Amino acid sequence: SVFVCVLFVIFICRLHSDPHSTLSQYVDSHQEEYVQTLRDWVAVESDSSDVLRRPDCHRMMDMTAEKLQAMGGKVELVDIGVQELPDGKTVALPKVVTAQFGNDPSKQTVCVYGHVDVQPAKLEDGWTTEPYNLTDINGNLYGRGASDNKAPVLAWIHTVEVYQALSIDLPVNVKFIIEGMEETGSNGLDAMIVAQRDTFFSDVDYIIISDCGWLSRRPALTYGTRGNCYFFAEVEGPKQDLHSGVYGGTVIEPMTDLIGILDTLISPSGKILIPGIREAVASLSDEEWKMYQDIEFDIESFKSKIGVSQLMYSNKVDLLAHRWRYPTVTIHGIEGGFSGPGSKTVIPAKVIAKFSIRQVPNMDPAVVKKQVTDYLNSVFAKRKSPNKLKVTMIIGAKPWLADTKHPLYEAGKAAVKRVFNVEPDLIREGGTIPIAKTFEDVTGKSIIMMPIGGFDDGLHSQNEKMSRYNYIEGTKLFIAYLHEVAHLKKD
Amino acid sequence: SVFVCVLFVIFICRLHSDPHSTLSQYVDSHQEEYVQTLRDWVAVESDSSDVLRRPDCHRMMDMTAEKLQAMGGKVELVDIGVQELPDGKTVALPKVVTAQFGNDPSKQTVCVYGHVDVQPAKLEDGWTTEPYNLTDINGNLYGRGASDNKAPVLAWIHTVEVYQALSIDLPVNVKFIIEGMEETGSNGLDAMIVAQRDTFFSDVDYIIISDCGWLSRRPALTYGTRGNCYFFAEVEGPKQDLHSGVYGGTVIEPMTDLIGILDTLISPSGKILIPGIREAVASLSDEEWKMYQDIEFDIESFKSKIGVSQLMYSNKVDLLAHRWRYPTVTIHGIEGGFSGPGSKTVIPAKVIAKFSIRQVPNMDPAVVKKQVTDYLNSVFAKRKSPNKLKVTMIIGAKPWLADTKHPLYEAGKAAVKRVFNVEPDLIREGGTIPIAKTFEDVTGKSIIMMPIGGFDDGLHSQNEKMSRYNYIEGTKLFIAYLHEVAHLKKD
Repeated sequence: SVFVCVLFVIFICRLHSDPHSTLSQYVDSHQEEYVQTLRDWVAVESDSSDVLRRPDCHRMMDMTAEKLQAMGGKVELVDIGVQELPDGKTVALPKVVTAQFGNDPSKQTVCVYGHVDVQPAKLEDGWTTEPYNLTDINGNLYGRGASDNKAPVLAWIHTVEVYQALSIDLPVNVKFIIEGMEETGSNGLDAMIVAQRDTFFSDVDYIIISDCGWLSRRPALTYGTRGNCYFFAEVEGPKQDLHSGVYGGTVIEPMTDLIGILDTLISPSGKILIPGIREAVASLSDEEWKMYQDIEFDIESFKSKIGVSQLMYSNKVDLLAHRWRYPTVTIHGIEGGFSGPGSKTVIPAKVIAKFSIRQVPNMDPAVVKKQVTDYLNSVFAKRKSPNKLKVTMIIGAKPWLADTKHPLYEAGKAAVKRVFNVEPDLIREGGTIPIAKTFEDVTGKSIIMMPIGGFDDGLHSQNEKMSRYNYIEGTKLFIAYLHEVAHLKKD
Repeated sequence: SVFVCVLFVIFICRLHSDPHSTLSQYVDSHQEEYVQTLRDWVAVESDSSDVLRRPDCHRMMDMTAEKLQAMGGKVELVDIGVQELPDGKTVALPKVVTAQFGNDPSKQTVCVYGHVDVQPAKLEDGWTTEPYNLTDINGNLYGRGASDNKAPVLAWIHTVEVYQALSIDLPVNVKFIIEGMEETGSNGLDAMIVAQRDTFFSDVDYIIISDCGWLSRRPALTYGTRGNCYFFAEVEGPKQDLHSGVYGGTVIEPMTDLIGILDTLISPSGKILIPGIREAVASLSDEEWKMYQDIEFDIESFKSKIGVSQLMYSNKVDLLAHRWRYPTVTIHGIEGGFSGPGSKTVIPAKVIAKFSIRQVPNMDPAVVKKQVTDYLNSVFAKRKSPNKLKVTMIIGAKPWLADTKHPLYEAGKAAVKRVFNVEPDLIREGGTIPIAKTFEDVTGKSIIMMPIGGFDDGLHSQNEKMSRYNYIEGTKLFIAYLHEVAHLKKD
């Protein structure tokens, strides 16, 4: 009919008049292909914390490089050396993938950072689907690493692909730096960035990180992250595990000692008891307080999402502040004891507590390391135990904080407005993207964090997921963002 | 030569004049066969604490029954019902094997109790050999369950077999009761003993238990055991594990709560802090003190065996008393946290501590259950945490104490003297043989514990072993003991 014909013409005109629309529609029509690629990536168990999974990590880096190479990028797999294991052995670190699309000196150059390693996940941890088999339930794509950080990395890759497929010039030069050790502290990446400061990074104007998530259903831009100091506290006693009936009462048990010192880290009300930690924290400014008040955040839905009846703080500002800009201590678990189901009457010979302290300005990991080690040694000494305590800090990642008035953030606000038709929330992240601070310190370039993950993606948890909506609309956001960045005045 | 011939005649005469010699020599010449049978039994992973291993437990009971049946015993596999799991499901308990050899009413009747289930064991726990592949290293037979309790059970079975093979009448009637749930508290056995009090147990004069070990290289008879109350303390918070960066500081973490309450159980110097526990303990008599003084026990070699520089007590009497006749608290481990190698930044949603309190006269498990539950609930309440604490006592086994002047013990001393040519040490056992107290209470019969396990067998530990020496000489001890018991005046 004529009516349909007119609609079609309008559609064609729209297609030609608005390149963003054209690009967006291409994204929509390739959704299933993007989901399949994510499925292929999630299937690789690239758990960087488990040395036995290291071959999978290497494979994941190879797959990433191959994908970028097939798109005609200038790709390198950069050897960043070896990791030293607790037993003194070494194992190769996953290589870092760098790639470059376009090198027009008249254009801005952005560098997208991402990672393709993941946290551990096992079905028996309580997943309802196989963690490494991406499973679509009502538009949510469940799988370890789906949101953290494989889908965002793919969304960036697809952003470049879409331009290529439609033969539209990239509005900016796009570089990638993709690593495989983020979940355990980006071992080796700092040195690589330093080494390539005057080569790979020399023409980079801005760095974009999408390794985070929204705070609510409202899209967000992230301007700060906490750092992380991850500790092992090992108490070693008898030379082997002992029968608790036969030996109980005669030996000073390592587990009792370990429990005793762990109990001195934090009070029931969340107060960190390690001397010096709280004193180092920057105080909350009035401006911050005001910003926090304005953020869209519903405490009741937060409580119901995580399934608790009471939080550590009952008002929004305290809660957000303790999530984003105050340190906290978490005890993750104890290795070496009996941790299986059922009962076992054992006195474990050696037990290792894993705990971490989230860092905020103006804490310094090197200082925290000394504070924690000295403190635990002193409380342990008071027990007069013959057992041996060894405290090691295996990760020391710094916090990061950006200026929300920077043009990069103004461009981000415009891109969010274009795709989602709302103003983004300006938020911070309780978690750590250790490399942000390094990028800033080494390259001197500005950084923006532009999340596309949902607020309920369950990062590091059972049933991690990425929604199709965020994956696909997120890709469109990246496309729009490249346009906005192209209009920034080149430094 | 004439000399050799004379020796041979002396040998033959000796063989015929002393039935114990004949029987002993048969044992010696069948050593390899006995080791092979033990290997077959150890190969069955009859870990009763792991429900997934239940089929192996059933198979182990079947193998035991078949062995006794093949020897012509009157054998029954007694159904003792089901076990209720924490999730409310039920699973069949391993059947109890009973057997009878001889029913001459003019003879004494002994009933040998043993168990063929084992503690958990995995190579990665630190075993130097495969735990379920019996491995002979310098005459020590390494394998899970080798000493606890498969070899002693087999030694008793071989004792009967030797008489049969040599067509020598058993000096007493021998019954067996072999179970498969000892390591988790002999679930279902109490009721079975009560049910068969007037049938299977009606003609039993004495009960013999060989589920323990010597204290030193000197053979021993055991006259007491500690009981065991095994607890789960579960703290549940968020509905699933959370990312410690994203949520740390906002939630009251279950692990922090659990560590906090565990730290109130016992002081660094070993003092139990749960009100009422210490008050219930029988005081040490002067006679006991004197007995302990006389026992062969070298503190330095004990320390070096377990590899510690300092014990909870530095003198022999205190040390033995706290090993045998005072209660103790052991924290075995925590389920639900991150207990693997490496690092994981998780806030565990639900954590379950496993701890146990060894019972002694005059403690009562039912009272202990209430004391522990009330105490932990009260210390938890002080934390004002929104998390949920659930304390359950999954094992409540009573202690047992015998009279060392009883004729059964006199017969034991004589048998030890005959085989080893020394007086046995009279010792107690820090561990638990839960069923001893039940046998005593239900059947009213006297019980003796006659260990053949070595002092360094590593029960419940890595590299559990049974030495060929103890296995073979232990079989001879049992043979000698049946002779001694035959001479006791029938009640």
